[in-house]
Amino acid sequence: MKVAKFGGTSLASAAQIKKVCEIVKSDEARKLVVVSAPGKRYKEDTKVTDLLIRYAEARLQGQPAEEVQSRIIGRYQDIIRELGLPVEAAEEIAAQLKEALHYIPAEDPGRFMDRVKAAGEDTCAKLVARYLQSQGREAVYVNPKDAGLVVTGEPGNAHVLPEAYEKLRNLKSQSGIVIFPGFFGFTPEGELVTFSRGGSDITGSILAAAVQAELYENFTDVDSVYVVNPSLVEKPKEIQIITYREMRELSYSGFSVFHEEALYPAYQAGIPVCIKNTNNPQAPGTMIVSERPFHENRVSGIAADKGFCSIYVSKYLLNKEIGFGRRLLQIFEEEGLSYEHTPSGIDNISVILREKDFTPQIEQRVVNRLKQELQAEDIIVERGLSLVMIVGEGMRRSVGTSARATSALARAKVNLEMINQGSSEVSMMFGVKEVDADRAVIALYEEFFAQSEEALADMAVTLKA
Amino acid sequence: MKVAKFGGTSLASAAQIKKVCEIVKSDEARKLVVVSAPGKRYKEDTKVTDLLIRYAEARLQGQPAEEVQSRIIGRYQDIIRELGLPVEAAEEIAAQLKEALHYIPAEDPGRFMDRVKAAGEDTCAKLVARYLQSQGREAVYVNPKDAGLVVTGEPGNAHVLPEAYEKLRNLKSQSGIVIFPGFFGFTPEGELVTFSRGGSDITGSILAAAVQAELYENFTDVDSVYVVNPSLVEKPKEIQIITYREMRELSYSGFSVFHEEALYPAYQAGIPVCIKNTNNPQAPGTMIVSERPFHENRVSGIAADKGFCSIYVSKYLLNKEIGFGRRLLQIFEEEGLSYEHTPSGIDNISVILREKDFTPQIEQRVVNRLKQELQAEDIIVERGLSLVMIVGEGMRRSVGTSARATSALARAKVNLEMINQGSSEVSMMFGVKEVDADRAVIALYEEFFAQSEEALADMAVTLKA
Repeated sequence: MKVAKFGGTSLASAAQIKKVCEIVKSDEARKLVVVSAPGKRYKEDTKVTDLLIRYAEARLQGQPAEEVQSRIIGRYQDIIRELGLPVEAAEEIAAQLKEALHYIPAEDPGRFMDRVKAAGEDTCAKLVARYLQSQGREAVYVNPKDAGLVVTGEPGNAHVLPEAYEKLRNLKSQSGIVIFPGFFGFTPEGELVTFSRGGSDITGSILAAAVQAELYENFTDVDSVYVVNPSLVEKPKEIQIITYREMRELSYSGFSVFHEEALYPAYQAGIPVCIKNTNNPQAPGTMIVSERPFHENRVSGIAADKGFCSIYVSKYLLNKEIGFGRRLLQIFEEEGLSYEHTPSGIDNISVILREKDFTPQIEQRVVNRLKQELQAEDIIVERGLSLVMIVGEGMRRSVGTSARATSALARAKVNLEMINQGSSEVSMMFGVKEVDADRAVIALYEEFFAQSEEALADMAVTLKA
Repeated sequence: MKVAKFGGTSLASAAQIKKVCEIVKSDEARKLVVVSAPGKRYKEDTKVTDLLIRYAEARLQGQPAEEVQSRIIGRYQDIIRELGLPVEAAEEIAAQLKEALHYIPAEDPGRFMDRVKAAGEDTCAKLVARYLQSQGREAVYVNPKDAGLVVTGEPGNAHVLPEAYEKLRNLKSQSGIVIFPGFFGFTPEGELVTFSRGGSDITGSILAAAVQAELYENFTDVDSVYVVNPSLVEKPKEIQIITYREMRELSYSGFSVFHEEALYPAYQAGIPVCIKNTNNPQAPGTMIVSERPFHENRVSGIAADKGFCSIYVSKYLLNKEIGFGRRLLQIFEEEGLSYEHTPSGIDNISVILREKDFTPQIEQRVVNRLKQELQAEDIIVERGLSLVMIVGEGMRRSVGTSARATSALARAKVNLEMINQGSSEVSMMFGVKEVDADRAVIALYEEFFAQSEEALADMAVTLKA
């Protein structure tokens, strides 16, 4: 049994939905299908989820929302018509969608927002089920409430509850193809709550873990995950196989193919994941697994993320003060700041965090507290940092990886603000100025991927001669 | 006005004390002289301080201590005789020493130990003052209690109190040469307390800061501080000038020329420090200052220290848990452990600490708490680590230093367990296995010191040709 999840671009239009259904029909094992809401049909298009958010915000502010409501309903009506669904089916789906949109904003705007957003996936799932039925297949829309996908209650930030897995396991005995809306679940009290944005990946991963699927297929619009951001490097290499840990590190630092939290249920249950392309289902895609064979090049990907800042704190003999680091982190925690890393010297420590959280007001408060409560001598805030990462299992155990990386960066005239290696077994991290980030990524790609192929080609020439 | 401090080997014998007095007499500005207790005369000799500790321990355990007492008194009597001091002076000094040694162990063994240890420096100071007087100089022994060197009360671990500086400033108006015993002070209640071992350096630094000396001279038995441990490299380069921050980082990691805490008072008051050789006072020595000019080679020293261990903790999506790092450090703090560094990956964090503190019992307790209180998934303890450091002001601002370092280490087949760069402006730290540490230091020395000279020589040859 396989779980197949389809992303927004795979469901953006009737033509795309037809492709999805062909893919589902082509493999008997694809018995559990998770769908997103219709995404963009073309670059300037708007995703249905964004229209739904716009609609909900207008309603919450008491502003007119008719126009955006028509656009939303129109998107589905176009699809229904183009799929040639029977009139009564079309009417039923449209009526249910209208009903969902006409919820009255309750005392809790978060709940209202979640209900409206969820309508995107929910309607899409009903529609896909109807279409498969119209094709003569046994297909059934299953609602997350009925299936038992119970979650925690924070609006827009649900987390699956452990008991959900037991309940969802019953989906195994459902006859026919199950079409399941992604992105949301229900609290034990029956309140609808969505996952964070992009959370349909999470739904698919939870279902795959619950039914102990042989494979969790995640259909998107690229043939595979690339070893580097394809907007920086022309035709970068594709990743054929990668471990959960590697994928997790890449997801953190700018690889947006897969929701950061989505891997966890599959990882825990040991379900292999395959990233595939709805528009080219023959391509093998990228496999995400527990363990992979090491090949010569132990680096499996290079990623970068911008928008970090560092707060450097120094104090003479800081090193001898028991509890200094803990008290420092407590100040950040009390100010609601989540930090990323804390490299340290002998008498100094830096805290690296996401710049967006560190507003000028918070900065002033934190700096004052560091001076007053910790008697810090120097405090230097540096903004505009980027973290560049090399990811690869077993990399750490091979002598010379850091030498190759730092030499490549030096040749590219990238100054290293920070190097963090030593905790993770699978990554090495470089802090650079944002303006240097792209150059750093390209230099590392050339060192670990492009160059090695040239070297191999050279070697082949030498051997022939 | 200069403060000159002389270490144990400079006072080990009458011949050495004569050298000290020649040095003092040769510069009118040397008006404040701090002395240690007599050290080793030859490699197998025992320092007076170690004899005193042995004596105090025997007394505390109610064991016979006459023999070691005779050895201590004998050391001073030999010196007094060889210096040719008048009989009454010799008798007075010996009587005072005997009196000090005959303290009755009180209810507080720590206080007793401190009083006995301090007698080493105290007797030496009296003796030097007498000798200078016998040479026709105006010299006066000053007791730390009379001078106002007030300190905190923990036995063997005194810290200077802020009000001491005000009181000690009066030493400026003392006529003649002041001979001051190093290593100890008195609590405001009048109890004698010693600094940590090697603390005469601290006394000198405090006096220099208090009187706003033009220079704090620290006389020892080497011509200068070397850029690397001279037991690893033959005739290593000498450091001519170094900043307080550089010296602090080197002191941390195995450079034992100067007490770790001793630099602080001089650093705060901006007093330049000069490390000189009693046996070769003409050598310029090593200057420690606030700022130094950068030269081509921005690295000023390479050091290594052994005996570290790392505790690796991983948990999927750890990165999203606000407060994880703080709670982790709190566990270490509650177990009385002072940690050194905390490199981190995305979903993992390592704590580096001194191995001696991390006993198997504490390890078991910490590992259990990490599992139970933080639900950590993997915990790996690695022992036998060494931290190797490259120290140099401005190094970070030059592109390629890390590339040169990591390449040199890769060529020497040193696997890097950890790289920590980014907080300190003046150092770069590599974690390696202890067995690799010496090889790592030698490789870095060759890269940053030996090689550049060869390269310069090569260049000179090329230019001549």
